[in-house]
Amino acid sequence: MNVQIINDNKEALKVFKSSQETDEAAQLANKSFLLYRSFSGTIKAGFLEAIALGIEAGRNSLLQTAMQETFLQEARLNGEITRTINQIKLFADLLNEGSWIRAIIDTALPERTPLPKPDLRQMQKPIGPVAVFGASNFPFAFSTAGGDTIAALAAGCSVVYKAHPAHPLLSEMVANIINEAAKRTKMPEGIFSIVQTSSVETATYLVQHPLIKAVAFTGSVKAGKSIYDAAAKRNEPIPVYAEMGSINPVFILPEILKQKGEEIAKALAASNLLSAGQFCTNPGIIIANENEDAPKFLSAFASVINNANAERMLTDSIHHAYEQSIKKLSSSNFVKLNQKGNKPEKENCATPNMFTTSAETFIQNPDLHEEVFGPFSLHVNANNDDEIMKIAEALQGQLTITILGTENDINNYGALINYLELKAGRIIINGVPTGVEVTHAMMHGGPYPATTDSKFTSVGSSSIYRFTRPVCYQNFDDKILPQELQNANVLSIVRMVNGEYTRNKI
Amino acid sequence: MNVQIINDNKEALKVFKSSQETDEAAQLANKSFLLYRSFSGTIKAGFLEAIALGIEAGRNSLLQTAMQETFLQEARLNGEITRTINQIKLFADLLNEGSWIRAIIDTALPERTPLPKPDLRQMQKPIGPVAVFGASNFPFAFSTAGGDTIAALAAGCSVVYKAHPAHPLLSEMVANIINEAAKRTKMPEGIFSIVQTSSVETATYLVQHPLIKAVAFTGSVKAGKSIYDAAAKRNEPIPVYAEMGSINPVFILPEILKQKGEEIAKALAASNLLSAGQFCTNPGIIIANENEDAPKFLSAFASVINNANAERMLTDSIHHAYEQSIKKLSSSNFVKLNQKGNKPEKENCATPNMFTTSAETFIQNPDLHEEVFGPFSLHVNANNDDEIMKIAEALQGQLTITILGTENDINNYGALINYLELKAGRIIINGVPTGVEVTHAMMHGGPYPATTDSKFTSVGSSSIYRFTRPVCYQNFDDKILPQELQNANVLSIVRMVNGEYTRNKI
Repeated sequence: MNVQIINDNKEALKVFKSSQETDEAAQLANKSFLLYRSFSGTIKAGFLEAIALGIEAGRNSLLQTAMQETFLQEARLNGEITRTINQIKLFADLLNEGSWIRAIIDTALPERTPLPKPDLRQMQKPIGPVAVFGASNFPFAFSTAGGDTIAALAAGCSVVYKAHPAHPLLSEMVANIINEAAKRTKMPEGIFSIVQTSSVETATYLVQHPLIKAVAFTGSVKAGKSIYDAAAKRNEPIPVYAEMGSINPVFILPEILKQKGEEIAKALAASNLLSAGQFCTNPGIIIANENEDAPKFLSAFASVINNANAERMLTDSIHHAYEQSIKKLSSSNFVKLNQKGNKPEKENCATPNMFTTSAETFIQNPDLHEEVFGPFSLHVNANNDDEIMKIAEALQGQLTITILGTENDINNYGALINYLELKAGRIIINGVPTGVEVTHAMMHGGPYPATTDSKFTSVGSSSIYRFTRPVCYQNFDDKILPQELQNANVLSIVRMVNGEYTRNKI
Repeated sequence: MNVQIINDNKEALKVFKSSQETDEAAQLANKSFLLYRSFSGTIKAGFLEAIALGIEAGRNSLLQTAMQETFLQEARLNGEITRTINQIKLFADLLNEGSWIRAIIDTALPERTPLPKPDLRQMQKPIGPVAVFGASNFPFAFSTAGGDTIAALAAGCSVVYKAHPAHPLLSEMVANIINEAAKRTKMPEGIFSIVQTSSVETATYLVQHPLIKAVAFTGSVKAGKSIYDAAAKRNEPIPVYAEMGSINPVFILPEILKQKGEEIAKALAASNLLSAGQFCTNPGIIIANENEDAPKFLSAFASVINNANAERMLTDSIHHAYEQSIKKLSSSNFVKLNQKGNKPEKENCATPNMFTTSAETFIQNPDLHEEVFGPFSLHVNANNDDEIMKIAEALQGQLTITILGTENDINNYGALINYLELKAGRIIINGVPTGVEVTHAMMHGGPYPATTDSKFTSVGSSSIYRFTRPVCYQNFDDKILPQELQNANVLSIVRMVNGEYTRNKI
């Protein structure tokens, strides 16, 4: 790795590698946190905005490096840079507006009997230094300056960032941008550090470091669960937000299958093939009744797969895992290969694959519920609505579940739709699961194994609450309260005062 | 246990005992949850109000049984019943008002380029069947119909309640009241079940039951951590809200020590002795500079202790543990006995004890940071402000930290006060930590070992969020959305719509 070229004429970025160096990063993060935690929303927003500006300024060289390291396409990566910048701006706006801290105020009742009621004021405060594990498949949006890092910084936490080994140069370039932004906006040293290592031992050391107070991760169930288990062995339990696998089931209801089977097939297949299927919201399981309309849908889907090229995957090991899964499925009696895409012309390219199976087989084989990361779909044919419901019941936790149906379908399958929300963080009607909006209402999370904590999203403004905890101030004089909780409400934020939501002063 | 007497002329309550029966309770809870989760706020509020009415109606007999089983005093228990009823009413009010579900709505932008923005609407939904472990020291407020059970029911979850063996008859009486209220308000069977067992195996079985989706517990660090560890071994991780030990440090600043040393000593000693010191917010550690004003404070405190009677503790084992702790401390070189209260006249009565030590010794001995459950205090004498700050740094996580000071003190010790919020869920100025208000702004929780999850409170309306998770609805037709998220906003709840908080319709 040629650090000279990357760093250009800037001060050299310190890249932490060993466990001993990771300890140094955690110590720095803690020292930094003790100052940074009290910074105002506006000051933190200024830091985030400087990061966004830095990314925009470096867009071209970031793009080139990302293309070289990830083999993802230019348009997709360019879009991801824009998304990442918008994500940073969303958090900067949130901090500038200020209401996100969830001020709850119950004023005193000194005359209450038998005992006076004290003044109680609560707000969200940063939880402490956070360890963030970057993803392979989103080199910007879920990596160095991605949602986890930015949400943690927005909350008032410092970050020790463990880069994904799939794109080390890009990670370092973005770390440099964060570092420069931190210097320019006078953030304390150690507010953000990057650890580059492939050592499981060092990663575990970081998760178990006593100064680390929360962990965010995006990746496979295996890696995410092992991080969760490592954290569970700590003396002090901490929250672990691992966003992991999902097969993102799609239920196609009868009337729409009849009316728009081919159209749906094309849209779903396109979603399934996006970026070689390397999306955590990739629609991997497609469920429908096997009626007279099913063959038309399946052949339209098959036709897209048949014409699809083998795209280069992110890494050797991701490609290897995909090939192994396909090999295992191909030799299995439980599923049937329906269609394959074109053969690979280069190394690490993944041929799209489409399999079919019966509802009964799917329900009885837990293996078929595991994510196959890549351009893969399994079409589950049910004999009747009863089997459709049994499939729903058999599903594990998901990031998303999609239902495709006409108005009649949606009315007829109300019980199914209502049941499915037990199994996912986001329910989509007549859309595709790929495409995760960065907004206030987004929920990118879900019951295990989609994540290790179904209560939190890793995308959207609510993701900031992964890195906060409430603190209650009892009987504080107004002037020593945090500004957000003082009577005057100079920030004009929304607060719950004696049970009422208001921007008024007290 | 004479169930006939308890049940009077009501239908017999099923008490679950073995692991096999606990499985039955969990199955019932899940079946019940599948219906109850969709009930409206008003209907759930009706159920809660019926429980509150039942408790009020049974107040006298509940009180008699509680006195017999817990040895707590009548006035205290009567107050606790009132508190429990008010707590239930707080949640009923929350449900009737409706805004608690945190509706977040981002409306569609169909014209957006390059891709249209879909309509996204999020709200909190119940997490699933909850296991609640009752406490010994609050037979009403943290037991059968206590905060955990009521918050879970309010959230839309069913409850499997593991009663504390310290008050089995009372637990069953209250379970009966819940059961009758459930029948009267037509709740589905299994919405609440009581498990009575002393078997660790059965308790672990409940925590690890695949249908249980969250655990709430109040008790010791040892028991709470073992529940946390048992849950961490599940295939599917679930949240564990264990509210455990706390030594609730009190910092007395110099000017107030000089001006009001004796007054403070009396108030703190009274707080320390309340209900034989059996409060999770009992002020166990009292820290001050050892200056010329300290002796007056200490002797005033000692004088209260000296005159205090030995009160009966909750159980044999709690009394035994207290005696063992005092014995260990008495024979230790690290602390010095300052004053003892009166000798016990009956079995299981605890003599109040007051010890002193130096800051250096306290900092260096982790044993001294462990809670001694009972009428115990350790007075830590610091040589200077530097040692005061080092004590603050050495503290583990706490439910509460109290600072006593004049206006000058508070100004002079701003850095200390600001630092202390890293160590506790609630910071109190010029008050006592006992007395936990049941309001919106209360935070009864804190960093480990105060709890296993510093992000949540177990008292106050926010405690409902322990039992919910967000669900996002994408591109749903208005009429099939949950009522809370429909455009019309017929419930007139506060919602965040495109970033603005409003009660308006869309």
